[in-house]
Amino acid sequence: MRPCVTLTTDFGTAGPYVGAMKGVILSHCPDVQLVDITHDIPPQNIRLGALILADATPYFPPGTIHIAVVDPGVGTERALVYAEIGSQRYLAPDNGLLTLVYRRGPVGRIFRLTEKTLWRPEVSHTFHGRDILAPVAGRLAAGLNPTSLGPPMNSLRLLDWPEPVWEEGQLRGQVVAVDNFGNLITNIDKQHLSGVQLGPRTEVSIANKVILGISRTYGDHPPGRLIALFGSAGRLEVAIVCGNAARTLNVAVDTPVILRPDAG
Amino acid sequence: MRPCVTLTTDFGTAGPYVGAMKGVILSHCPDVQLVDITHDIPPQNIRLGALILADATPYFPPGTIHIAVVDPGVGTERALVYAEIGSQRYLAPDNGLLTLVYRRGPVGRIFRLTEKTLWRPEVSHTFHGRDILAPVAGRLAAGLNPTSLGPPMNSLRLLDWPEPVWEEGQLRGQVVAVDNFGNLITNIDKQHLSGVQLGPRTEVSIANKVILGISRTYGDHPPGRLIALFGSAGRLEVAIVCGNAARTLNVAVDTPVILRPDAG
Amino acid sequence: MRPCVTLTTDFGTAGPYVGAMKGVILSHCPDVQLVDITHDIPPQNIRLGALILADATPYFPPGTIHIAVVDPGVGTERALVYAEIGSQRYLAPDNGLLTLVYRRGPVGRIFRLTEKTLWRPEVSHTFHGRDILAPVAGRLAAGLNPTSLGPPMNSLRLLDWPEPVWEEGQLRGQVVAVDNFGNLITNIDKQHLSGVQLGPRTEVSIANKVILGISRTYGDHPPGRLIALFGSAGRLEVAIVCGNAARTLNVAVDTPVILRPDAG
Repeated sequence: MRPCVTLTTDFGTAGPYVGAMKGVILSHCPDVQLVDITHDIPPQNIRLGALILADATPYFPPGTIHIAVVDPGVGTERALVYAEIGSQRYLAPDNGLLTLVYRRGPVGRIFRLTEKTLWRPEVSHTFHGRDILAPVAGRLAAGLNPTSLGPPMNSLRLLDWPEPVWEEGQLRGQVVAVDNFGNLITNIDKQHLSGVQLGPRTEVSIANKVILGISRTYGDHPPGRLIALFGSAGRLEVAIVCGNAARTLNVAVDTPVILRPDAG
Repeated sequence: MRPCVTLTTDFGTAGPYVGAMKGVILSHCPDVQLVDITHDIPPQNIRLGALILADATPYFPPGTIHIAVVDPGVGTERALVYAEIGSQRYLAPDNGLLTLVYRRGPVGRIFRLTEKTLWRPEVSHTFHGRDILAPVAGRLAAGLNPTSLGPPMNSLRLLDWPEPVWEEGQLRGQVVAVDNFGNLITNIDKQHLSGVQLGPRTEVSIANKVILGISRTYGDHPPGRLIALFGSAGRLEVAIVCGNAARTLNVAVDTPVILRPDAG
Repeated sequence: MRPCVTLTTDFGTAGPYVGAMKGVILSHCPDVQLVDITHDIPPQNIRLGALILADATPYFPPGTIHIAVVDPGVGTERALVYAEIGSQRYLAPDNGLLTLVYRRGPVGRIFRLTEKTLWRPEVSHTFHGRDILAPVAGRLAAGLNPTSLGPPMNSLRLLDWPEPVWEEGQLRGQVVAVDNFGNLITNIDKQHLSGVQLGPRTEVSIANKVILGISRTYGDHPPGRLIALFGSAGRLEVAIVCGNAARTLNVAVDTPVILRPDAG
């Protein structure tokens, strides 16, 4: 089976950085299947990187190698790691980028990347993606045993992830991302609501607006309607049908969202 | 021959959606050749999606599978379809996205996607791209017979596409797209002008400007010159040499354009 | 070994142009490894295209074919060329796009593309990328001997590239690019400073700011600090740790930068 390597970075697509990494990977494994997840993580936004890795990587074939680079600490003493989580494999700085995939687990082997003979001969202090992660990914794709990468580790550094909180019968969460449609993705998840009855009297409040009921999908309502629904990753979303909720409500990441299961 | 699957969506490139779809496709066909046509269709802009599919997909090897997702009706009763058109194969919502490729034809078999055992086991109401189109594309790429997808259909829903109109010896059309260079792409096509003599006295009018003559290419004129020419897909374009016509003329999609073959 | 073709253009990613080129390449070589370097070169900015080719292409496997299209002269008498430089192969208009890779060399064979039987049967005056470069790249990837492409050439047209200048013990250069992080990339290179002692009293001046010392990497300083360092391609950069130097200093390409090795 053809090995697969994905890339998730905050490099943008306008510069030479992503191309250079792919060139290095291909030099070690010309037959690799290369997939861009995204290069448009806002610079240094580890939290959004963690969210995108959690929502995209589980769908890949088992054994896929996911390189993630959102790395304000490049060139400092922060570790670079290889981690087996679920059926997937990850290469990333140990700065919290893997928080959400790690918490979902199950977590397998973790190694710290220390074996320099596997890296490019000259390592830039500012581009470990090209000089360490890319050659390591290429070698793994070509069959290298991960035990060669460096010493095992027991755990990863995790972000202090914002969790929704129950207070007086309502669940208080927040917006954690805004997608391309202006939909507001929250940290309230279906699993926070297991055993909770939702219905026509359920209310979602955001930015002084109150939405009554949870919708099934966008197209069930006329254009312009403000709705709440559970998105494709199980997260509560606030959306405007055929519109842009972020722009219309003038709302961004961190805005509070409150769900009342039965507002009657 | 290695199977090829392309993707054309309005998802943007910043989120996890495109990556998730590719992961699903690869899970069914690890050796597939994946190509992004674009993910920057403006949200819900079916018309522009139709135009880009028409201008990009005919160049692919016969049998290529083109997934197109601009789908404001996701999760509602609109159909998802498989259609063989020209030498290509398409997977899309039946909402007009295939209008221009369909009109060019020839149209072959069409099937409605109803066979749920070919989909992901749990189908989100808001992401049929990942849960229906991606697994179906992956299975087709791996050799599935399209007759398994569901019942045959006789035709597709088409957009009410704006056609240029002859009036008093002039052809009245409109801008249908603006490209990355600010060139204004119109719905006036070479084939609307077959048998019509164009020459140095031909005039193209837009936004109170009159352009005399049809140019051969951009570089035949000095920078800054406003010109009209037939672009690489046979469509009449208005451009500013080494400049941005959309910005300079302050013109957008739907602006009228008039061509007078002989204004003398 | 699987052949590799990369693309570097100013087409943007929103239109059908990149997809059409890939379709043509795949029609000649279905198994090719396709890599996007970037399509976000600012329109007609040959200089930035030259810089990105220099910083990305050397990392690819030997024999990789790099198509570069920043081509304001499309359809005019400017030549299209095939050039072997270093271990890589390039297809581009002969307009200076290859200046930086050419100067680094070593330069091997160069051919002018004149053999029309290798092109698409109908060649648009405005899209030689699709109609000439793509089929030629696909045929080369499938094994075509480059001697078939057209007559040999002895040299390429080069841009008048801005070089830093020593004056009264200081090296005067300029910003040549701004990356996704707002880092200011200059034309001052490590090799301009070979034999020059840099240390804690080295000063870098830009936009009325003076930076003392050359840093090793971003993370060695607290967020918000303005620093100078040598980036991953050996170029002097000015950056703000976890910030955006271009925006904060309100500085763009062409801004002067002065390095004083010992300002004491």
